[in-house]
Amino acid sequence: MATLLNNASAPYFFLILSLTTIILSFSPSHSSDPDPLQDFCVADLNSAILVNGFPCKPASKVNSKDFISYVLAKEGNTSNVFKSAITNANVQAFPGLNTLGISMNRVDLAPGGIFPPHSHPRSTEAGVVIIGEVLVGFVSSSNVLYSNVVKAGDMFVIPRGLVHFILNKGHGKALTISAFNSQGQVSSVVPNILFGSKPTIPNEVLTKTFQVSESVIKSIKSKFAS
Amino acid sequence: MATLLNNASAPYFFLILSLTTIILSFSPSHSSDPDPLQDFCVADLNSAILVNGFPCKPASKVNSKDFISYVLAKEGNTSNVFKSAITNANVQAFPGLNTLGISMNRVDLAPGGIFPPHSHPRSTEAGVVIIGEVLVGFVSSSNVLYSNVVKAGDMFVIPRGLVHFILNKGHGKALTISAFNSQGQVSSVVPNILFGSKPTIPNEVLTKTFQVSESVIKSIKSKFAS
Amino acid sequence: MATLLNNASAPYFFLILSLTTIILSFSPSHSSDPDPLQDFCVADLNSAILVNGFPCKPASKVNSKDFISYVLAKEGNTSNVFKSAITNANVQAFPGLNTLGISMNRVDLAPGGIFPPHSHPRSTEAGVVIIGEVLVGFVSSSNVLYSNVVKAGDMFVIPRGLVHFILNKGHGKALTISAFNSQGQVSSVVPNILFGSKPTIPNEVLTKTFQVSESVIKSIKSKFAS
Amino acid sequence: MATLLNNASAPYFFLILSLTTIILSFSPSHSSDPDPLQDFCVADLNSAILVNGFPCKPASKVNSKDFISYVLAKEGNTSNVFKSAITNANVQAFPGLNTLGISMNRVDLAPGGIFPPHSHPRSTEAGVVIIGEVLVGFVSSSNVLYSNVVKAGDMFVIPRGLVHFILNKGHGKALTISAFNSQGQVSSVVPNILFGSKPTIPNEVLTKTFQVSESVIKSIKSKFAS
Amino acid sequence: MATLLNNASAPYFFLILSLTTIILSFSPSHSSDPDPLQDFCVADLNSAILVNGFPCKPASKVNSKDFISYVLAKEGNTSNVFKSAITNANVQAFPGLNTLGISMNRVDLAPGGIFPPHSHPRSTEAGVVIIGEVLVGFVSSSNVLYSNVVKAGDMFVIPRGLVHFILNKGHGKALTISAFNSQGQVSSVVPNILFGSKPTIPNEVLTKTFQVSESVIKSIKSKFAS
Amino acid sequence: MATLLNNASAPYFFLILSLTTIILSFSPSHSSDPDPLQDFCVADLNSAILVNGFPCKPASKVNSKDFISYVLAKEGNTSNVFKSAITNANVQAFPGLNTLGISMNRVDLAPGGIFPPHSHPRSTEAGVVIIGEVLVGFVSSSNVLYSNVVKAGDMFVIPRGLVHFILNKGHGKALTISAFNSQGQVSSVVPNILFGSKPTIPNEVLTKTFQVSESVIKSIKSKFAS
Repeated sequence: MATLLNNASAPYFFLILSLTTIILSFSPSHSSDPDPLQDFCVADLNSAILVNGFPCKPASKVNSKDFISYVLAKEGNTSNVFKSAITNANVQAFPGLNTLGISMNRVDLAPGGIFPPHSHPRSTEAGVVIIGEVLVGFVSSSNVLYSNVVKAGDMFVIPRGLVHFILNKGHGKALTISAFNSQGQVSSVVPNILFGSKPTIPNEVLTKTFQVSESVIKSIKSKFAS
Repeated sequence: MATLLNNASAPYFFLILSLTTIILSFSPSHSSDPDPLQDFCVADLNSAILVNGFPCKPASKVNSKDFISYVLAKEGNTSNVFKSAITNANVQAFPGLNTLGISMNRVDLAPGGIFPPHSHPRSTEAGVVIIGEVLVGFVSSSNVLYSNVVKAGDMFVIPRGLVHFILNKGHGKALTISAFNSQGQVSSVVPNILFGSKPTIPNEVLTKTFQVSESVIKSIKSKFAS
Repeated sequence: MATLLNNASAPYFFLILSLTTIILSFSPSHSSDPDPLQDFCVADLNSAILVNGFPCKPASKVNSKDFISYVLAKEGNTSNVFKSAITNANVQAFPGLNTLGISMNRVDLAPGGIFPPHSHPRSTEAGVVIIGEVLVGFVSSSNVLYSNVVKAGDMFVIPRGLVHFILNKGHGKALTISAFNSQGQVSSVVPNILFGSKPTIPNEVLTKTFQVSESVIKSIKSKFAS
Repeated sequence: MATLLNNASAPYFFLILSLTTIILSFSPSHSSDPDPLQDFCVADLNSAILVNGFPCKPASKVNSKDFISYVLAKEGNTSNVFKSAITNANVQAFPGLNTLGISMNRVDLAPGGIFPPHSHPRSTEAGVVIIGEVLVGFVSSSNVLYSNVVKAGDMFVIPRGLVHFILNKGHGKALTISAFNSQGQVSSVVPNILFGSKPTIPNEVLTKTFQVSESVIKSIKSKFAS
Repeated sequence: MATLLNNASAPYFFLILSLTTIILSFSPSHSSDPDPLQDFCVADLNSAILVNGFPCKPASKVNSKDFISYVLAKEGNTSNVFKSAITNANVQAFPGLNTLGISMNRVDLAPGGIFPPHSHPRSTEAGVVIIGEVLVGFVSSSNVLYSNVVKAGDMFVIPRGLVHFILNKGHGKALTISAFNSQGQVSSVVPNILFGSKPTIPNEVLTKTFQVSESVIKSIKSKFAS
Repeated sequence: MATLLNNASAPYFFLILSLTTIILSFSPSHSSDPDPLQDFCVADLNSAILVNGFPCKPASKVNSKDFISYVLAKEGNTSNVFKSAITNANVQAFPGLNTLGISMNRVDLAPGGIFPPHSHPRSTEAGVVIIGEVLVGFVSSSNVLYSNVVKAGDMFVIPRGLVHFILNKGHGKALTISAFNSQGQVSSVVPNILFGSKPTIPNEVLTKTFQVSESVIKSIKSKFAS
């Protein structure tokens, strides 16, 4: 696959149109949003008034460009501890999605890369593998792991709110495109949330949670300190 | 692009894993479905009881394979009047989507191909162009056309229920992957609905609708008769 | 029926209280809106802030008159190409409907008049024929036409988002009153959307859609140019 | 108005197509139902399985007649204590409404008749007066009464779940047609619920509620005993 | 139970942390609200803009204290005609609940006290008896009374929108804690709504409703005049 | 507080009516469920047909006892690694909650006990502390920890889908009663899901997730093996 990405046909392909660096912000996710009450309501991200979702731009300022987004065309920068990058096309990045109840993201995974266990608090995820081969797993609330190796062209689904992960199992890069049934997708990434929050979760909570000594907790926290 | 599809790197790419023929059934689409009431409810497509959506398979028969689908990996057969093919990954094709409020489809367009004006009665569509370059347009209920040329890697959105079309504007094949915020996506394709329904719509309705003579209506009907 | 409308008992009847001209704006329709979060939220149609739906007037300015509307009492002007008139009592016309998830319209049809094929992007329609006799038909996404001749006093239903039409089949005027499960009902009227949009849909799209020559498309467009 | 109903033009009008007696069952009402997951799901009222709403008839048994109803054409029998009659066109009476989130009713009021204070537990009501002149009032949860005299052709709205009443204020019969944003509309009629339930509400509850003696309670109960 | 409340261990118990007087405002209640579109949206109760629900405080002003409320800790003042007190922890009292679709209340009942028949226009209620023993009853829209004596530790449920009451059946005080599936819970209390509204409901409506003489109506009204 | 639980007045109090052992099943949780379509639909837990939620018992078999539950009256058995017990009153335990969109649970915490980090995939939680003093914390998807010490009588809220924990900070037992805006509440408990699932999550996933050696992962897994 690395071969493909470097060969002559690559320029025709969108994945590497540019190697723009994407800030690693773990925040894909979604839900069944309130129904739209008009044809569209393009988000005014700078409104002084904040509501459930976003206020709309005046209709007179809406044009065709509000319904197209270029953010998914750029490969994310995977030079980080997880060797992965999440690029969100949610309402914050693509204001035309406001009130429409859908969003997308792309996940780039370097060889060996992982999108560690996380959940989307308010939506289901359906994804397609575009490049490579990944292990996708989710755990039900009854503690049953459901997992599949998903190859390019195949589709997977993660039920709303369940913890799941994506691991690159191939020899080259991997790329997935996922959709979420909420415009305001976010992710709760387990290691960041438990060991890298501000302020930090008390060690007493974490030692009791994982049944380990405080030194183990401190060691993990040191890797996720921000 | 045709070059890419025929060259040596193609086998790595999912689009042409096989050139299986897909029956041209115009039926992508969607909505904000009722929320799920359990982790999952894999559809029992053969249940004797029919409900809003589908009944569930017993949990004891659910396994990891219920959450993966291979239908999007196959290129559709575009040998038809519209030179396009729609392949649905909705709950009928991917039962694991049941109750989860999301689905996908792929649209293959031969050079010059079109997915003619249609609407999804119950959902918004968000799509990504994977190969090629298409003209995507929708018309608001105020009769304003919003359209964009969308290139590989870029994303578009079609608000719920609005009439829209996709036209291949490139020199080679085009491929889009779209997501819908309803598991049971269907399409109402304008020419088929108006001129190819069973039974047919009375000519009086159509002549008055389009302000044309009956001979024009009969001529169009002859092309969509089934 | 024309007799009834002109006879002495007519003054008791609301249909012709006045022959006010209603601008022909094709825009009935709707959906399952977000639930209300307070007893009522009368729309402030002039708010500087736009949201999904409308902001509310201050409670101190709400009085009984906010919950009554007179717009449906006026017969519409059917002097137009379709010999029909649509009068909406949606939230724009009746601000008290805001957040309440319901609206109405009236459709007046002169003899031979039609409300041409259209869809309501976000709601189901249930209607009652008040005067006359109409042919009501809708086409499912499987291209099956369901139609009935509906007489005064009888009720029909059009599932959400499906294309449908109403044709006056009687010798006199016809009148229907419909309800929609969304306060912000609008209509996407097929001939206007396809042939009368601003900007216009490219002829290439329409010739491929209807499999006709460009001259036919130009001819139809000339009748819907605005 | 009684004159109109008996005069020569009446046969053209649906209200008295037949003077069929309608059993006085106080049960109009509504809500924002779960969204439909298919084009339609005509209720199977005799299914052995009961679900939220109703299971669907097989698609092969659905035809055009499932989408029309004749129940609203018949005038109700107002020979009862309230001099009024409610005729419901909800999913039980019109199975084609199932999953579609809308229903209707008609209220016939003899001179002096009343539809006493009641609420619709799960929906908003929007109504049109077809004949006569009525006083429509509802009380907010803050105990404010909003009321209007509504004449033929005019429209009113009752926010979801609020207690309201309709009183015939004219000299003749009155008729209203209302719509509800739920297919399974029902009514909770205050006098019947408080004084005519089975089993009866303990007198202690009612004397404390209305701050009256037990004899007053017993007297009222005697009028609503069933 | 009164003993418990007066004994030495009582100070450890929250019920009487303070005997603050709570204004008797009958307004608990609820519904299935629109889904949240972000992690949280703490209500800005003083916003100049009013929407369905409340606008949000800026995220920069949100802190941990927004997610805790002390209002339920205070016993209500039951020195009133019903010998009961309702203390609401809805979004107006606890702004952190905004957009989250849940709220609570506490009902204090002196010996013999009653929370008279009322309904929550937009939500279901689930409650737990904390102290004492109460009779909880609701009446279905088919006029069937369902009632139970509910003791400390036991739970009851009242379906959305149905009329219900709570009567203290024990010898001491009673306390219930209820939850509602709407952040903006309110109550429509039957005696207050029918006999204490502003303006008042016409006597004609009430005499016809309860089939009593005007003097009985006037007598009841005199007790609920505000 | 331990004093209260052991003293003479305790028998009057529900918390220790009996020290029944409750199986430690971590599964509280919730969401905004589809609206009810009838007054009630008491779950038939043994139906051969499975749907989104549960089918209903026939109305003829429903009686008052369907709307009361005794499960919350029993203290849970906290003799386990977390020194805590969760007792659910969701639709599985209290079938009358079916379709009504609400449920409850009780959490018993021995001194030092914890309900470890978990999320409710489909609902918001609002809770009241009945006995004791607990630390309640949740982490937003932006990795911000919001936490409060919550004392008896006080209320807290946890936004839908976010990871949170409850730690007993007092010297005696603690008890909380929580409500959820979904009838089918479940919990995804982080340590159980990540280290105790069946089958287990591959060590490669967990070492990369927490940036620790495989021996640490194996050690934690050994404590959660089932």
